[in-house]
Amino acid sequence: MKGGGVMSGNIDFLKLNVKEVKPEDIEAASMAIIAEEMERLGGVDIPEINLPVLKRVIHTTADFDFMQTLKFSPEDEAVTLGREALKRGVSIITDTQMAAAGMSKPSAQKFNNKIICRMAEPEIKEEALKRGVTRAVVSIEHAVRETPDAIFAIGNAPTALIKLCELIIEGKATPSLIIGVPVGFVNVVESKELLVEVAKKFNVPFIAAMGRKGGSPIASTIINALFYGIK
Amino acid sequence: MKGGGVMSGNIDFLKLNVKEVKPEDIEAASMAIIAEEMERLGGVDIPEINLPVLKRVIHTTADFDFMQTLKFSPEDEAVTLGREALKRGVSIITDTQMAAAGMSKPSAQKFNNKIICRMAEPEIKEEALKRGVTRAVVSIEHAVRETPDAIFAIGNAPTALIKLCELIIEGKATPSLIIGVPVGFVNVVESKELLVEVAKKFNVPFIAAMGRKGGSPIASTIINALFYGIK
Repeated sequence: MKGGGVMSGNIDFLKLNVKEVKPEDIEAASMAIIAEEMERLGGVDIPEINLPVLKRVIHTTADFDFMQTLKFSPEDEAVTLGREALKRGVSIITDTQMAAAGMSKPSAQKFNNKIICRMAEPEIKEEALKRGVTRAVVSIEHAVRETPDAIFAIGNAPTALIKLCELIIEGKATPSLIIGVPVGFVNVVESKELLVEVAKKFNVPFIAAMGRKGGSPIASTIINALFYGIK
Repeated sequence: MKGGGVMSGNIDFLKLNVKEVKPEDIEAASMAIIAEEMERLGGVDIPEINLPVLKRVIHTTADFDFMQTLKFSPEDEAVTLGREALKRGVSIITDTQMAAAGMSKPSAQKFNNKIICRMAEPEIKEEALKRGVTRAVVSIEHAVRETPDAIFAIGNAPTALIKLCELIIEGKATPSLIIGVPVGFVNVVESKELLVEVAKKFNVPFIAAMGRKGGSPIASTIINALFYGIK
Protein backbone atom coordinates (compact mmCIF):
# COMPACT_ATOMS: atom_id res chain seq x y z
CA MET A 1 0.00 0.00 0.00
CA LYS A 2 1.34 3.34 -1.02
CA GLY A 3 0.79 6.11 1.49
CA GLY A 4 1.11 4.10 4.70
CA GLY A 5 1.90 0.43 5.12
CA VAL A 6 0.36 -2.12 7.42
CA MET A 7 2.49 -2.16 10.53
CA SER A 8 2.70 -2.45 14.29
CA GLY A 9 3.26 -5.32 16.64
CA ASN A 10 2.07 -8.86 16.09
CA ILE A 11 0.28 -8.23 12.86
CA ASP A 12 3.34 -7.10 10.97
CA PHE A 13 3.48 -10.35 9.05
CA LEU A 14 0.22 -9.56 7.32
CA LYS A 15 1.86 -6.73 5.48
CA LEU A 16 3.66 -9.33 3.39
CA ASN A 17 0.34 -10.61 2.09
CA VAL A 18 -0.92 -7.28 0.82
CA LYS A 19 0.39 -6.72 -2.69
CA GLU A 20 1.57 -3.32 -3.89
CA VAL A 21 -0.68 -2.43 -6.79
CA LYS A 22 -1.13 1.08 -8.12
CA PRO A 23 -4.76 2.24 -8.23
CA GLU A 24 -4.68 2.55 -12.02
CA ASP A 25 -3.40 -1.02 -12.35
CA ILE A 26 -5.96 -2.79 -10.14
CA GLU A 27 -8.56 -3.36 -12.85
CA ALA A 28 -6.04 -4.71 -15.38
CA ALA A 29 -4.54 -6.99 -12.72
CA SER A 30 -8.02 -8.27 -11.85
CA MET A 31 -8.91 -8.88 -15.48
CA ALA A 32 -5.67 -10.82 -16.00
CA ILE A 33 -6.51 -13.08 -13.02
CA ILE A 34 -10.03 -13.57 -14.38
CA ALA A 35 -8.77 -14.52 -17.86
CA GLU A 36 -6.26 -16.96 -16.36
CA GLU A 37 -8.83 -18.60 -14.14
CA MET A 38 -11.39 -18.85 -16.95
CA GLU A 39 -8.74 -20.65 -19.00
CA ARG A 40 -8.03 -23.00 -16.09
CA LEU A 41 -11.76 -23.74 -15.81
CA GLY A 42 -11.89 -24.82 -19.44
CA GLY A 43 -12.70 -21.48 -21.10
CA VAL A 44 -15.97 -20.46 -22.72
CA ASP A 45 -17.21 -20.91 -26.23
CA ILE A 46 -18.81 -17.53 -26.89
CA PRO A 47 -18.27 -14.92 -29.59
CA GLU A 48 -15.36 -12.54 -28.91
CA ILE A 49 -17.68 -9.53 -28.67
CA ASN A 50 -19.48 -11.04 -25.64
CA LEU A 51 -16.32 -11.81 -23.69
CA PRO A 52 -15.77 -8.38 -22.07
CA VAL A 53 -19.36 -8.46 -20.77
CA LEU A 54 -18.83 -11.87 -19.16
CA LYS A 55 -15.46 -10.84 -17.71
CA ARG A 56 -16.92 -7.70 -16.22
CA VAL A 57 -19.75 -9.70 -14.59
CA ILE A 58 -17.15 -12.00 -13.04
CA HIS A 59 -15.11 -8.94 -12.00
CA THR A 60 -18.17 -7.61 -10.17
CA THR A 61 -19.15 -10.87 -8.47
CA ALA A 62 -15.97 -12.98 -8.24
CA ASP A 63 -18.31 -15.77 -9.30
CA PHE A 64 -17.22 -17.96 -12.20
CA ASP A 65 -20.63 -19.67 -12.34
CA PHE A 66 -21.56 -16.94 -14.80
CA MET A 67 -19.29 -18.66 -17.35
CA GLN A 68 -22.07 -21.24 -17.55
CA THR A 69 -25.14 -19.09 -16.97
CA LEU A 70 -24.65 -15.84 -18.87
CA LYS A 71 -26.56 -16.13 -22.15
CA PHE A 72 -26.54 -13.75 -25.08
CA SER A 73 -29.13 -13.71 -27.81
CA PRO A 74 -29.12 -13.67 -30.75
CA GLU A 75 -25.49 -14.71 -30.26
CA ASP A 76 -23.27 -11.77 -31.16
CA GLU A 77 -26.15 -9.37 -31.89
CA ALA A 78 -27.21 -8.46 -28.34
CA VAL A 79 -24.03 -6.54 -27.56
CA THR A 80 -23.96 -4.73 -30.90
CA LEU A 81 -27.65 -3.82 -30.80
CA GLY A 82 -27.37 -2.76 -27.17
CA ARG A 83 -24.50 -0.41 -27.99
CA GLU A 84 -26.34 1.02 -30.99
CA ALA A 85 -29.37 1.68 -28.79
CA LEU A 86 -27.24 3.41 -26.16
CA LYS A 87 -25.63 5.57 -28.87
CA ARG A 88 -29.13 6.50 -30.12
CA GLY A 89 -29.84 7.79 -26.62
CA VAL A 90 -32.58 5.34 -25.61
CA SER A 91 -33.62 5.35 -21.97
CA ILE A 92 -32.45 2.70 -19.54
CA ILE A 93 -35.24 1.38 -17.34
CA THR A 94 -34.32 -0.57 -14.23
CA ASP A 95 -36.18 -2.11 -11.33
CA THR A 96 -33.77 -1.15 -8.53
CA GLN A 97 -32.22 2.03 -7.21
CA MET A 98 -28.99 0.09 -6.68
CA ALA A 99 -28.69 -0.81 -10.36
CA ALA A 100 -29.40 2.79 -11.31
CA ALA A 101 -26.74 3.95 -8.84
CA GLY A 102 -24.20 1.58 -10.37
CA MET A 103 -24.57 2.69 -13.99
CA SER A 104 -21.92 5.04 -15.41
CA LYS A 105 -23.25 8.58 -15.23
CA PRO A 106 -20.55 10.12 -17.48
CA SER A 107 -21.36 7.53 -20.17
CA ALA A 108 -25.11 8.06 -19.89
CA GLN A 109 -24.61 11.82 -20.09
CA LYS A 110 -22.39 11.48 -23.13
CA PHE A 111 -25.06 9.60 -25.09
CA ASN A 112 -28.08 11.30 -23.54
CA ASN A 113 -29.49 8.15 -21.94
CA LYS A 114 -31.93 8.70 -19.13
CA ILE A 115 -31.55 6.17 -16.31
CA ILE A 116 -35.00 5.61 -14.84
CA CYS A 117 -36.08 3.66 -11.75
CA ARG A 118 -39.60 4.40 -10.55
CA MET A 119 -39.79 1.79 -7.78
CA ALA A 120 -39.66 4.32 -4.94
CA GLU A 121 -42.33 6.70 -6.30
CA PRO A 122 -45.37 6.93 -4.01
CA GLU A 123 -47.93 6.60 -6.84
CA ILE A 124 -46.29 3.35 -7.99
CA LYS A 125 -46.51 1.94 -4.48
CA GLU A 126 -50.13 3.07 -4.12
CA GLU A 127 -51.22 1.53 -7.41
CA ALA A 128 -49.39 -1.73 -6.61
CA LEU A 129 -51.09 -2.03 -3.23
CA LYS A 130 -54.50 -1.27 -4.74
CA ARG A 131 -54.10 -3.86 -7.51
CA GLY A 132 -52.34 -6.52 -5.42
CA VAL A 133 -49.32 -6.69 -7.73
CA THR A 134 -45.68 -5.88 -7.08
CA ARG A 135 -44.34 -2.34 -7.46
CA ALA A 136 -42.02 -3.80 -10.09
CA VAL A 137 -45.00 -4.77 -12.26
CA VAL A 138 -46.55 -1.31 -12.02
CA SER A 139 -43.28 0.48 -12.71
CA ILE A 140 -42.61 -1.67 -15.79
CA GLU A 141 -46.11 -0.95 -17.12
CA HIS A 142 -45.57 2.78 -16.71
CA ALA A 143 -42.13 2.58 -18.30
CA VAL A 144 -43.41 0.62 -21.29
CA ARG A 145 -46.13 3.19 -21.89
CA GLU A 146 -43.57 5.99 -21.82
CA THR A 147 -40.63 4.35 -23.60
CA PRO A 148 -41.63 1.01 -25.17
CA ASP A 149 -38.29 0.73 -26.98
CA ALA A 150 -36.06 1.35 -23.95
CA ILE A 151 -33.27 -0.87 -22.70
CA PHE A 152 -34.74 -2.77 -19.75
CA ALA A 153 -32.22 -3.84 -17.11
CA ILE A 154 -34.01 -6.06 -14.60
CA GLY A 155 -31.72 -6.84 -11.69
CA ASN A 156 -34.08 -7.80 -8.94
CA ALA A 157 -37.76 -8.56 -9.56
CA PRO A 158 -38.80 -11.55 -11.67
CA THR A 159 -42.31 -10.07 -11.68
CA ALA A 160 -40.89 -7.13 -13.66
CA LEU A 161 -39.34 -9.47 -16.21
CA ILE A 162 -42.50 -11.57 -16.51
CA LYS A 163 -44.64 -8.46 -16.97
CA LEU A 164 -42.23 -7.16 -19.61
CA CYS A 165 -42.52 -10.47 -21.49
CA GLU A 166 -46.30 -10.22 -21.36
CA LEU A 167 -46.20 -6.70 -22.77
CA ILE A 168 -43.96 -7.92 -25.60
CA ILE A 169 -46.44 -10.70 -26.38
CA GLU A 170 -49.25 -8.12 -26.38
CA GLY A 171 -47.29 -5.98 -28.82
CA LYS A 172 -46.95 -3.11 -26.36
CA ALA A 173 -43.24 -3.36 -25.56
CA THR A 174 -40.47 -3.42 -28.16
CA PRO A 175 -37.27 -3.30 -26.05
CA SER A 176 -34.00 -2.40 -27.75
CA LEU A 177 -32.35 -4.83 -25.35
CA ILE A 178 -33.38 -6.75 -22.25
CA ILE A 179 -30.87 -7.41 -19.51
CA GLY A 180 -32.58 -10.18 -17.57
CA VAL A 181 -30.70 -10.78 -14.35
CA PRO A 182 -33.19 -10.92 -11.48
CA VAL A 183 -31.97 -12.84 -8.45
CA GLY A 184 -33.73 -15.10 -6.00
CA PHE A 185 -35.92 -18.07 -5.36
CA VAL A 186 -39.53 -17.42 -6.39
CA ASN A 187 -40.19 -17.39 -10.16
CA VAL A 188 -36.65 -16.18 -10.89
CA VAL A 189 -35.53 -19.22 -12.90
CA GLU A 190 -38.92 -19.32 -14.60
CA SER A 191 -38.86 -15.62 -15.52
CA LYS A 192 -35.57 -16.07 -17.37
CA GLU A 193 -36.78 -19.17 -19.20
CA LEU A 194 -39.83 -17.18 -20.25
CA LEU A 195 -37.57 -14.36 -21.44
CA VAL A 196 -35.56 -16.74 -23.65
CA GLU A 197 -38.72 -18.10 -25.29
CA VAL A 198 -40.40 -14.75 -25.75
CA ALA A 199 -37.21 -13.12 -27.03
CA LYS A 200 -36.74 -15.88 -29.58
CA LYS A 201 -40.34 -15.63 -30.83
CA PHE A 202 -40.43 -11.83 -30.95
CA ASN A 203 -36.82 -11.30 -31.97
CA VAL A 204 -35.77 -9.24 -28.94
CA PRO A 205 -32.04 -9.06 -28.12
CA PHE A 206 -31.21 -10.05 -24.56
CA ILE A 207 -28.42 -10.77 -22.11
CA ALA A 208 -29.53 -12.96 -19.22
CA ALA A 209 -28.06 -14.81 -16.27
CA MET A 210 -29.92 -18.11 -16.25
CA GLY A 211 -30.70 -19.78 -12.93
CA ARG A 212 -31.20 -18.14 -9.57
CA LYS A 213 -28.22 -15.82 -9.54
CA GLY A 214 -28.21 -12.24 -10.73
CA GLY A 215 -28.69 -8.90 -9.03
CA SER A 216 -28.42 -5.15 -9.31
CA PRO A 217 -24.62 -4.98 -9.70
CA ILE A 218 -24.81 -7.44 -12.57
CA ALA A 219 -27.48 -5.35 -14.30
CA SER A 220 -25.41 -2.17 -13.97
CA THR A 221 -22.16 -3.94 -14.85
CA ILE A 222 -23.62 -5.20 -18.13
CA ILE A 223 -24.82 -1.68 -18.98
CA ASN A 224 -21.36 -0.35 -18.18
CA ALA A 225 -19.64 -3.07 -20.24
CA LEU A 226 -21.80 -2.00 -23.20
CA PHE A 227 -20.96 1.68 -22.63
CA TYR A 228 -17.21 1.08 -22.24
CA GLY A 229 -17.06 -0.89 -25.50
CA ILE A 230 -18.65 1.83 -27.65
CA LYS A 231 -16.15 2.95 -30.27
CA MET B 1 -49.46 -13.70 -11.98
CA LYS B 2 -52.34 -11.59 -10.84
CA GLY B 3 -53.36 -8.82 -13.19
CA GLY B 4 -52.57 -10.53 -16.52
CA GLY B 5 -51.30 -14.05 -17.17
CA VAL B 6 -48.68 -15.21 -19.61
CA MET B 7 -50.54 -16.21 -22.74
CA SER B 8 -50.64 -16.38 -26.53
CA GLY B 9 -49.55 -18.99 -29.04
CA ASN B 10 -46.66 -21.35 -28.66
CA ILE B 11 -45.44 -20.06 -25.34
CA ASP B 12 -48.66 -20.89 -23.51
CA PHE B 13 -47.00 -23.81 -21.76
CA LEU B 14 -44.65 -21.50 -19.93
CA LYS B 15 -47.52 -20.08 -17.97
CA LEU B 16 -47.62 -23.34 -16.04
CA ASN B 17 -44.12 -22.73 -14.75
CA VAL B 18 -44.80 -19.31 -13.26
CA LYS B 19 -46.13 -19.75 -9.73
CA GLU B 20 -48.91 -17.56 -8.35
CA VAL B 21 -47.42 -15.80 -5.35
CA LYS B 22 -48.88 -12.68 -3.80
CA PRO B 23 -46.39 -9.79 -3.52
CA GLU B 24 -46.56 -9.82 0.27
CA ASP B 25 -45.76 -13.54 0.34
CA ILE B 26 -42.70 -13.55 -1.93
CA GLU B 27 -40.14 -12.85 0.79
CA ALA B 28 -41.51 -15.47 3.18
CA ALA B 29 -41.63 -18.03 0.36
CA SER B 30 -38.02 -17.21 -0.52
CA MET B 31 -36.88 -17.49 3.08
CA ALA B 32 -38.60 -20.89 3.41
CA ILE B 33 -36.76 -22.17 0.32
CA ILE B 34 -33.47 -20.82 1.71
CA ALA B 35 -33.99 -22.51 5.09
CA GLU B 36 -34.86 -25.80 3.39
CA GLU B 37 -31.84 -25.70 1.12
CA MET B 38 -29.48 -24.75 3.95
CA GLU B 39 -30.76 -27.79 5.83
CA ARG B 40 -30.18 -29.97 2.75
CA LEU B 41 -26.62 -28.61 2.49
CA GLY B 42 -25.87 -29.69 6.05
CA GLY B 43 -26.89 -26.56 7.94
CA VAL B 44 -24.64 -24.08 9.70
CA ASP B 45 -23.27 -24.01 13.19
CA ILE B 46 -23.67 -20.34 14.10
CA PRO B 47 -25.46 -18.58 16.95
CA GLU B 48 -29.20 -18.06 16.36
CA ILE B 49 -28.82 -14.27 16.36
CA ASN B 50 -26.56 -14.40 13.27
CA LEU B 51 -28.88 -16.61 11.22
CA PRO B 52 -31.18 -13.87 9.82
CA VAL B 53 -28.11 -11.97 8.59
CA LEU B 54 -26.80 -15.03 6.76
CA LYS B 55 -30.21 -15.85 5.31
CA ARG B 56 -30.66 -12.32 4.05
CA VAL B 57 -27.25 -12.42 2.36
CA ILE B 58 -28.27 -15.64 0.60
CA HIS B 59 -31.63 -14.06 -0.27
CA THR B 60 -29.77 -11.20 -1.95
CA THR B 61 -27.26 -13.34 -3.84
CA ALA B 62 -28.84 -16.79 -4.26
CA ASP B 63 -25.37 -17.98 -3.33
CA PHE B 64 -25.08 -20.62 -0.61
CA ASP B 65 -21.28 -20.27 -0.54
CA PHE B 66 -21.88 -17.63 2.12
CA MET B 67 -22.85 -20.44 4.53
CA GLN B 68 -19.12 -21.17 4.59
CA THR B 69 -17.66 -17.70 4.20
CA LEU B 70 -19.75 -15.33 6.32
CA LYS B 71 -17.91 -14.77 9.59
CA PHE B 72 -19.12 -12.96 12.69
CA SER B 73 -16.90 -11.72 15.44
CA PRO B 74 -16.83 -11.92 18.38
CA GLU B 75 -19.42 -14.64 17.77
CA ASP B 76 -22.85 -13.38 18.82
CA GLU B 77 -21.66 -9.87 19.75
CA ALA B 78 -21.30 -8.34 16.27
CA VAL B 79 -25.03 -8.33 15.57
CA THR B 80 -25.98 -7.06 19.02
CA LEU B 81 -23.33 -4.34 19.05
CA GLY B 82 -24.19 -3.36 15.48
CA ARG B 83 -27.85 -2.94 16.40
CA GLU B 84 -26.99 -0.94 19.52
CA ALA B 85 -24.81 1.37 17.43
CA LEU B 86 -27.58 1.87 14.87
CA LYS B 87 -30.02 2.68 17.69
CA ARG B 88 -27.54 5.23 19.04
CA GLY B 89 -27.66 6.94 15.65
CA VAL B 90 -24.08 6.37 14.55
CA SER B 91 -23.26 7.17 10.93
CA ILE B 92 -22.91 4.46 8.32
CA ILE B 93 -19.87 4.95 6.08
CA THR B 94 -19.69 3.02 2.84
CA ASP B 95 -17.35 2.87 -0.14
CA THR B 96 -19.96 2.58 -2.89
CA GLN B 97 -22.98 4.55 -4.04
CA MET B 98 -24.71 1.24 -4.74
CA ALA B 99 -24.42 0.07 -1.15
CA ALA B 100 -25.70 3.46 0.05
CA ALA B 101 -28.61 3.19 -2.39
CA GLY B 102 -29.50 -0.25 -1.06
CA MET B 103 -29.69 0.65 2.63
CA SER B 104 -33.15 1.13 4.16
CA LYS B 105 -33.89 4.86 4.22
CA PRO B 106 -36.95 4.59 6.52
CA SER B 107 -34.86 2.65 9.06
CA ALA B 108 -31.96 5.10 8.87
CA GLN B 109 -34.35 8.02 9.31
CA LYS B 110 -35.99 6.34 12.27
CA PHE B 111 -32.71 6.05 14.17
CA ASN B 112 -31.07 9.19 12.76
CA ASN B 113 -28.25 7.36 11.03
CA LYS B 114 -26.52 9.29 8.27
CA ILE B 115 -25.55 7.12 5.30
CA ILE B 116 -22.36 8.55 3.85
CA CYS B 117 -20.47 7.68 0.67
CA ARG B 118 -17.90 10.25 -0.44
CA MET B 119 -16.41 8.29 -3.35
CA ALA B 120 -17.92 10.52 -6.03
CA GLU B 121 -16.87 13.85 -4.50
CA PRO B 122 -14.46 15.83 -6.70
CA GLU B 123 -12.05 16.72 -3.85
CA ILE B 124 -11.71 13.02 -2.95
CA LYS B 125 -10.83 12.17 -6.54
CA GLU B 126 -8.38 15.05 -6.77
CA GLU B 127 -6.57 14.11 -3.55
CA ALA B 128 -6.42 10.45 -4.57
CA LEU B 129 -4.88 11.31 -7.94
CA LYS B 130 -2.38 13.64 -6.33
CA ARG B 131 -1.27 11.07 -3.74
CA GLY B 132 -1.39 8.03 -6.02
CA VAL B 133 -3.82 6.13 -3.78
CA THR B 134 -7.37 4.95 -4.44
CA ARG B 135 -10.36 7.21 -3.85
CA ALA B 136 -11.52 4.58 -1.37
CA VAL B 137 -8.43 5.20 0.80
CA VAL B 138 -8.96 8.96 0.81
CA SER B 139 -12.67 8.71 1.54
CA ILE B 140 -12.03 6.34 4.46
CA GLU B 141 -9.42 8.71 5.90
CA HIS B 142 -11.86 11.62 5.73
CA ALA B 143 -14.64 9.52 7.24
CA VAL B 144 -12.46 8.35 10.12
CA ARG B 145 -11.48 11.94 10.92
CA GLU B 146 -15.15 12.96 10.98
CA THR B 147 -16.73 9.90 12.62
CA PRO B 148 -14.09 7.50 13.98
CA ASP B 149 -16.76 5.40 15.72
CA ALA B 150 -19.04 4.93 12.70
CA ILE B 151 -20.27 1.65 11.26
CA PHE B 152 -18.06 1.00 8.22
CA ALA B 153 -19.70 -1.05 5.47
CA ILE B 154 -17.05 -1.84 2.85
CA GLY B 155 -18.64 -3.52 -0.16
CA ASN B 156 -16.17 -2.91 -2.91
CA ALA B 157 -12.64 -1.66 -2.27
CA PRO B 158 -10.13 -3.79 -0.35
CA THR B 159 -7.94 -0.67 -0.18
CA ALA B 160 -10.65 0.94 1.96
CA LEU B 161 -10.69 -2.02 4.33
CA ILE B 162 -6.89 -2.15 4.54
CA LYS B 163 -6.71 1.59 5.24
CA LEU B 164 -9.39 1.23 7.91
CA CYS B 165 -7.37 -1.54 9.57
CA GLU B 166 -4.27 0.69 9.52
CA LEU B 167 -6.20 3.52 11.15
CA ILE B 168 -7.40 1.12 13.87
CA ILE B 169 -3.81 0.04 14.50
CA GLU B 170 -2.79 3.71 14.72
CA GLY B 171 -5.56 4.33 17.25
CA LYS B 172 -7.40 6.74 14.99
CA ALA B 173 -10.43 4.62 14.11
CA THR B 174 -12.71 2.95 16.65
CA PRO B 175 -15.51 1.48 14.51
CA SER B 176 -18.73 0.42 16.21
CA LEU B 177 -18.90 -2.36 13.63
CA ILE B 178 -17.08 -3.24 10.42
CA ILE B 179 -18.91 -4.95 7.61
CA GLY B 180 -16.04 -6.25 5.53
CA VAL B 181 -17.36 -7.55 2.24
CA PRO B 182 -15.23 -6.17 -0.58
CA VAL B 183 -15.31 -8.26 -3.75
CA GLY B 184 -12.67 -9.10 -6.31
CA PHE B 185 -9.26 -10.40 -7.11
CA VAL B 186 -6.52 -8.02 -5.98
CA ASN B 187 -5.90 -7.89 -2.20
CA VAL B 188 -9.53 -8.78 -1.46
CA VAL B 189 -8.84 -12.08 0.32
CA GLU B 190 -5.86 -10.47 2.07
CA SER B 191 -7.86 -7.44 3.24
CA LYS B 192 -10.38 -9.67 4.99
CA GLU B 193 -7.68 -11.78 6.63
CA LEU B 194 -6.11 -8.55 7.86
CA LEU B 195 -9.51 -7.44 9.19
CA VAL B 196 -9.92 -10.65 11.21
CA GLU B 197 -6.49 -10.24 12.81
CA VAL B 198 -6.82 -6.53 13.53
CA ALA B 199 -10.37 -6.93 14.85
CA LYS B 200 -9.24 -9.67 17.20
CA LYS B 201 -6.31 -7.65 18.50
CA PHE B 202 -8.22 -4.38 18.89
CA ASN B 203 -11.56 -5.91 19.89
CA VAL B 204 -13.60 -4.52 16.99
CA PRO B 205 -16.87 -6.29 16.12
CA PHE B 206 -17.13 -7.33 12.48
CA ILE B 207 -19.17 -9.24 9.95
CA ALA B 208 -17.12 -10.32 6.94
CA ALA B 209 -17.46 -12.49 3.86
CA MET B 210 -14.14 -14.30 3.65
CA GLY B 211 -12.65 -15.09 0.24
CA ARG B 212 -13.16 -13.22 -3.00
CA LYS B 213 -16.91 -12.83 -2.93
CA GLY B 214 -18.78 -9.87 -1.51
CA GLY B 215 -20.17 -6.68 -2.98
CA SER B 216 -22.36 -3.67 -2.46
CA PRO B 217 -25.67 -5.55 -2.15
CA ILE B 218 -24.17 -7.71 0.57
CA ALA B 219 -22.98 -4.64 2.48
CA SER B 220 -26.42 -3.04 2.32
CA THR B 221 -28.22 -6.30 3.02
CA ILE B 222 -26.26 -6.80 6.23
CA ILE B 223 -27.07 -3.25 7.34
CA ASN B 224 -30.74 -3.90 6.57
CA ALA B 225 -30.72 -7.23 8.41
CA LEU B 226 -29.41 -5.38 11.46
CA PHE B 227 -32.08 -2.68 11.12
CA TYR B 228 -34.94 -5.15 10.64
CA GLY B 229 -33.99 -7.09 13.74
CA ILE B 230 -34.01 -4.09 16.08
CA LYS B 231 -36.67 -4.63 18.74
